[in-house]
Amino acid sequence: MPHVNAGGSPVKIAAVDRPDQPSRSPELEDLYRGFEKALLVPLWTEIGDLMPPHPRSSAQPHRWEWGTLLDLAGRAGELVPVGRGGERRAIALANPSLGGKPYATPTLWAAIQYLMPGENAPEHRHSQNAFRFVVEGEGVWTVVERDPVPMRRGDFLPQPGLHWHAHHNAADTPMAWIDGLDIPFQYGVEAQFFDFGRDTLTEEEHATPDRSRAERLWGHPGLAPVSRLRRHEGTPLLCYRWTDTDAALTDQLALEREGHAGTIEPGHALVRYTDPATAGDVLPTIRAQFHRIATGVETAPYRETGSSVYQVFDGSGQVTVGDRSWRVSRGDLFVVPSWQPLSIRSEASASDSDSGALDLFQFSDAPIFTRLGLYRSRTEENSR
Amino acid sequence: MPHVNAGGSPVKIAAVDRPDQPSRSPELEDLYRGFEKALLVPLWTEIGDLMPPHPRSSAQPHRWEWGTLLDLAGRAGELVPVGRGGERRAIALANPSLGGKPYATPTLWAAIQYLMPGENAPEHRHSQNAFRFVVEGEGVWTVVERDPVPMRRGDFLPQPGLHWHAHHNAADTPMAWIDGLDIPFQYGVEAQFFDFGRDTLTEEEHATPDRSRAERLWGHPGLAPVSRLRRHEGTPLLCYRWTDTDAALTDQLALEREGHAGTIEPGHALVRYTDPATAGDVLPTIRAQFHRIATGVETAPYRETGSSVYQVFDGSGQVTVGDRSWRVSRGDLFVVPSWQPLSIRSEASASDSDSGALDLFQFSDAPIFTRLGLYRSRTEENSR
Amino acid sequence: MPHVNAGGSPVKIAAVDRPDQPSRSPELEDLYRGFEKALLVPLWTEIGDLMPPHPRSSAQPHRWEWGTLLDLAGRAGELVPVGRGGERRAIALANPSLGGKPYATPTLWAAIQYLMPGENAPEHRHSQNAFRFVVEGEGVWTVVERDPVPMRRGDFLPQPGLHWHAHHNAADTPMAWIDGLDIPFQYGVEAQFFDFGRDTLTEEEHATPDRSRAERLWGHPGLAPVSRLRRHEGTPLLCYRWTDTDAALTDQLALEREGHAGTIEPGHALVRYTDPATAGDVLPTIRAQFHRIATGVETAPYRETGSSVYQVFDGSGQVTVGDRSWRVSRGDLFVVPSWQPLSIRSEASASDSDSGALDLFQFSDAPIFTRLGLYRSRTEENSR
Amino acid sequence: MPHVNAGGSPVKIAAVDRPDQPSRSPELEDLYRGFEKALLVPLWTEIGDLMPPHPRSSAQPHRWEWGTLLDLAGRAGELVPVGRGGERRAIALANPSLGGKPYATPTLWAAIQYLMPGENAPEHRHSQNAFRFVVEGEGVWTVVERDPVPMRRGDFLPQPGLHWHAHHNAADTPMAWIDGLDIPFQYGVEAQFFDFGRDTLTEEEHATPDRSRAERLWGHPGLAPVSRLRRHEGTPLLCYRWTDTDAALTDQLALEREGHAGTIEPGHALVRYTDPATAGDVLPTIRAQFHRIATGVETAPYRETGSSVYQVFDGSGQVTVGDRSWRVSRGDLFVVPSWQPLSIRSEASASDSDSGALDLFQFSDAPIFTRLGLYRSRTEENSR
Repeated sequence: MPHVNAGGSPVKIAAVDRPDQPSRSPELEDLYRGFEKALLVPLWTEIGDLMPPHPRSSAQPHRWEWGTLLDLAGRAGELVPVGRGGERRAIALANPSLGGKPYATPTLWAAIQYLMPGENAPEHRHSQNAFRFVVEGEGVWTVVERDPVPMRRGDFLPQPGLHWHAHHNAADTPMAWIDGLDIPFQYGVEAQFFDFGRDTLTEEEHATPDRSRAERLWGHPGLAPVSRLRRHEGTPLLCYRWTDTDAALTDQLALEREGHAGTIEPGHALVRYTDPATAGDVLPTIRAQFHRIATGVETAPYRETGSSVYQVFDGSGQVTVGDRSWRVSRGDLFVVPSWQPLSIRSEASASDSDSGALDLFQFSDAPIFTRLGLYRSRTEENSR
Repeated sequence: MPHVNAGGSPVKIAAVDRPDQPSRSPELEDLYRGFEKALLVPLWTEIGDLMPPHPRSSAQPHRWEWGTLLDLAGRAGELVPVGRGGERRAIALANPSLGGKPYATPTLWAAIQYLMPGENAPEHRHSQNAFRFVVEGEGVWTVVERDPVPMRRGDFLPQPGLHWHAHHNAADTPMAWIDGLDIPFQYGVEAQFFDFGRDTLTEEEHATPDRSRAERLWGHPGLAPVSRLRRHEGTPLLCYRWTDTDAALTDQLALEREGHAGTIEPGHALVRYTDPATAGDVLPTIRAQFHRIATGVETAPYRETGSSVYQVFDGSGQVTVGDRSWRVSRGDLFVVPSWQPLSIRSEASASDSDSGALDLFQFSDAPIFTRLGLYRSRTEENSR
Repeated sequence: MPHVNAGGSPVKIAAVDRPDQPSRSPELEDLYRGFEKALLVPLWTEIGDLMPPHPRSSAQPHRWEWGTLLDLAGRAGELVPVGRGGERRAIALANPSLGGKPYATPTLWAAIQYLMPGENAPEHRHSQNAFRFVVEGEGVWTVVERDPVPMRRGDFLPQPGLHWHAHHNAADTPMAWIDGLDIPFQYGVEAQFFDFGRDTLTEEEHATPDRSRAERLWGHPGLAPVSRLRRHEGTPLLCYRWTDTDAALTDQLALEREGHAGTIEPGHALVRYTDPATAGDVLPTIRAQFHRIATGVETAPYRETGSSVYQVFDGSGQVTVGDRSWRVSRGDLFVVPSWQPLSIRSEASASDSDSGALDLFQFSDAPIFTRLGLYRSRTEENSR
Repeated sequence: MPHVNAGGSPVKIAAVDRPDQPSRSPELEDLYRGFEKALLVPLWTEIGDLMPPHPRSSAQPHRWEWGTLLDLAGRAGELVPVGRGGERRAIALANPSLGGKPYATPTLWAAIQYLMPGENAPEHRHSQNAFRFVVEGEGVWTVVERDPVPMRRGDFLPQPGLHWHAHHNAADTPMAWIDGLDIPFQYGVEAQFFDFGRDTLTEEEHATPDRSRAERLWGHPGLAPVSRLRRHEGTPLLCYRWTDTDAALTDQLALEREGHAGTIEPGHALVRYTDPATAGDVLPTIRAQFHRIATGVETAPYRETGSSVYQVFDGSGQVTVGDRSWRVSRGDLFVVPSWQPLSIRSEASASDSDSGALDLFQFSDAPIFTRLGLYRSRTEENSR
């Protein structure tokens, strides 16, 4: 956080020779010194940066390889204990254009979290909205509001703000997964609250059930438990299982093959995780979606306000974001900054994909934009 | 915007000796270098700053004196032309803790705008939500979507995002007023769009009617024009006149004196500007309110998530925000950062106030918090 | 309410010779007797009446002349006391096609209420939503939730369900006005609750203020009292004054003359009374609107689902509803049944109109249709 | 529909000797004749019936035995063809207090529909909201907007207003099911539209898929197809399968046994069918729910505004509605009028129930009440 310079003002205003700027003169310099002293900044020197014709993201497109993340997380598993204070063995993506901050994008945090066999991450809660997504492995239970939720490959576990939560690894192998939160957004608007919880959970909370209570109440399609109908912000369904997501994607592509509507564009199935109590996004600030792109398909370049993080779940392909392009495969993560066009080509890779397609998990800050009347998107013609 | 250092990574992670941090060792240093190279940052070194127990604003409380602003704006009127490129002769409050940026708070822009007799500020539009508030003077018309809206002392003129607008001063004296926008917020989440409009308005748009068409359609209490009922983001009522605001505040204090509910606390009248087509806040990201505090009254310390900018409209008093305190009078502006307690004492000053009270205009980013489930507030017992 | 006939079933099914009906036979008669005994009715004998191609109202267009109503109400003023039990000296329009029930339409009640000098109508409350509209006279205060609200020509006073209310005539002349309620609708769906209140009001409640407290809190355009922002069903603004309504209508016609949008069709101004706390209809089941039709203008035939009652406020003209047509003038009431086309021609009548136009108050059951997804409307080409 | 008597008015007003009525006199009789002639009815003679202290339903509690319905429907299957004009072989419950009309309650229609092997019910659409529920059998496909939806025991098939639909029996046995609609409500408020469709469906529409396209798009818990997110009135999910409903009920009772919340009262599981695109009721005017009551449990008497129809799906028990009580078992239907208390006792009947419990399907008009601010309910202490 910049502060006032010793003996001076934090404000510096430079008069420049440019057609859209006032003529340089001693009087103008005097005026600018007056502005600095009074802690004022004119619009006319700043407008080009502050109010561009369209979003020019301070973040840049970037990809992180899953193998590297997993290696480093494994080494952290040996060297860094999990406990009160540090709270979680989570290692965050730091977008190279965001000044070394642990921000994947200006609004989103994405981290790999790693828990060794038998370890417990202590209970806490925070106003930040969060979720977990599992690209591989199992054995950890996330205990949300005393309800143990199992985590397995393909599962998506949202956790609305101010819900108490802890994790414990009940398996005899380490487990890694992805955490997504709105930490940068809440830091920026200054909305954060955080409370420490109990250091140890009860025996009942250490149970390892196959399904959470949340799923037993809310996981039946189109069926709401009448005793729990009060609406809050954030979904009451704490886990969206892979079998359901996989089936929904499979159905969309099959419907397309049969000649019916369902996909978002040819060869591109897309589902959104929704809150069964409101039908809106699962979290007030985070949208989560899952894409399946049939082999050989290239998606039309798509721009939207706000930023996304993607993780490849299965298959492989070529991703282009703005002027960057990478080949990606299982576990790789990449970021799409605001208003940068994204296109994905799914490539044949019979060995590594269950569905014979490219599967990608996505999360974004879209609800911030839709709820505040700021959402815009544009699909470009695919040049191929 | 920080960028990658020459020859290095933008990420720097320091191992420190502290009970909540892992033990320093060559292996840990090696791990941290690995993180840096891979553009990763651990949570355990950052959590205290990123996830504090409650908002600790990067902004600080600060007051700007109206006389100083008006002087500097007047000198700018002589030296700085208004035209395409610079767009507006607007001079923004720069919070001394925000690094010299033209940000009153992390989300809000507040500026004094100044227009000389006969001047025109050219037409443009932008996704940023905006308003004007007039603490003194008259003679300028803001032309919004071709509808000329007069500006006079006490008037509040909201202008939702992407509405075309220009200003022209039809009087023979300069005029100053306050502009409020969500520029820092839209900069942070990267939502901005901006378009230049026509350089000159038509003769009809240069008219100087006493009331805007917007007011003639939407300015009648509880009465909606059926032909215009489609709902958009942002109010269709483009001016809220002082006579109405004054009457509403007067009524609240009179009801209190008669023993009835109405004020927000004893001696403290409070009205919110609302969109007559939705009954919600006038702008999707900005809340605007007007306070009248009876002479001798001190308001209970109040905290809320999000930040505000206040301008004294009339009267004088003592304002305390966190550990700062200032005496304020007509035209002075001050900022209240997130979760800092605010208390205001209205002081007798018979000479300068029409109502014999302290009148304050306030705007804040509250809709961002309420629409995203992040709003919290707390009123403390007044220690007096 | 029909009941089981002595010795038989309430159900009677007749076999008929018609192409769309099953062939008559002893077996069919036997089947129909079986249906009757089991309290069953087949769809195939009833579908034409139950499920018509478009609404065929059981109500018929009808007009009541104000002079007749006022005479009869005046005679009731002499003969019928006002007090507990009968509750109100209200005399309801009985649509001639609705079987003698006091129903203006299948969903709406409309009555003339009459209060002699010094009389009090005792306090009660009910789930039925109600309003009053004043076509002439003054001197009565309606006391709603202990808040005395004056009634004067042109005022519209909504009163949401379950609000306690009483009336008292503080003048030395009788006063008549129109009551509108959703009595038939709530009777039909069986939603009614009713409670008796206090027999006498306090002295304070018998006050005769010029404005109600509700108006002082909520009657300022676009300005909400922050202390009272909780939302309920039904408007907190208990009176919409004629001066505001008149000004809004005048503005719409003036905007049209100046070449701007505003009217609903040429020469036809239309405002809707709205709840300032929700921007929706003033009452959950009743929409209220006010029309001003410039002299010489004939409105395009308009149909909508649901029914309306109109009262002429000023001016005179010719009204056509379906196959009925009447000349109307001040105070006359008429009903427009569901899906019947309505057209109104405003006729010159310089003597009796302030605005030189035909002014009409309208109320309808439109919110029932809009809130339940059943609203449809159609404007026809004006044949002239 | 009553009409004007030959030579008289439809209105008849009788003066009576009663303390709450005006004194009988020639003048009063004269006034009443004046009212009749002018088509007016006073409130004071009608208020007790029109505005009762709480709903007094014109309907009465009644039960229909499934065996009787099935027998009569089967005989209709032999005698009454299905085709254009009669449209459906549907036989409706006629509440014995509703004058022989085919109304189960004042707002709801409930019928048994019966289709012989190979029969087709022709395509049509109507504004009335509808659903089907299957208590036994299979073999019919309902084709909604060209999407064939299979019908099997326990399935619930909602069908929002104005959706084209037809039925065809692809099996070699007859099939019966229950139709529920808001016919009486739409008749009462006069909202009805009806259109005939094609007489024969295409071959593709006569397919007999195991799942509808609607289920493939919308039947995955918490997962929305992004290509179909526009919201309309009425659920896009056209079938709610019994396996899901059964699992949700089983989970609630199991959670209760494990000591967790979930049931609506001890031993009483309750799920509501909801629209996955809005999370609200499946239809704008109809709520549908499913109850499972553990053997030996008696539910607390419950009243609510509005009426319901129940069908026993499995098990048996004793039902009490107001002053009526019946023993019920599979397929039996009964109605609960507005504000009448309902209590159900589940009785051991090992032979006939899969779940060892009493399972009941319920539909009601609750959305009419909740959307219009008229919903009230009360649970009484169970006297046992």
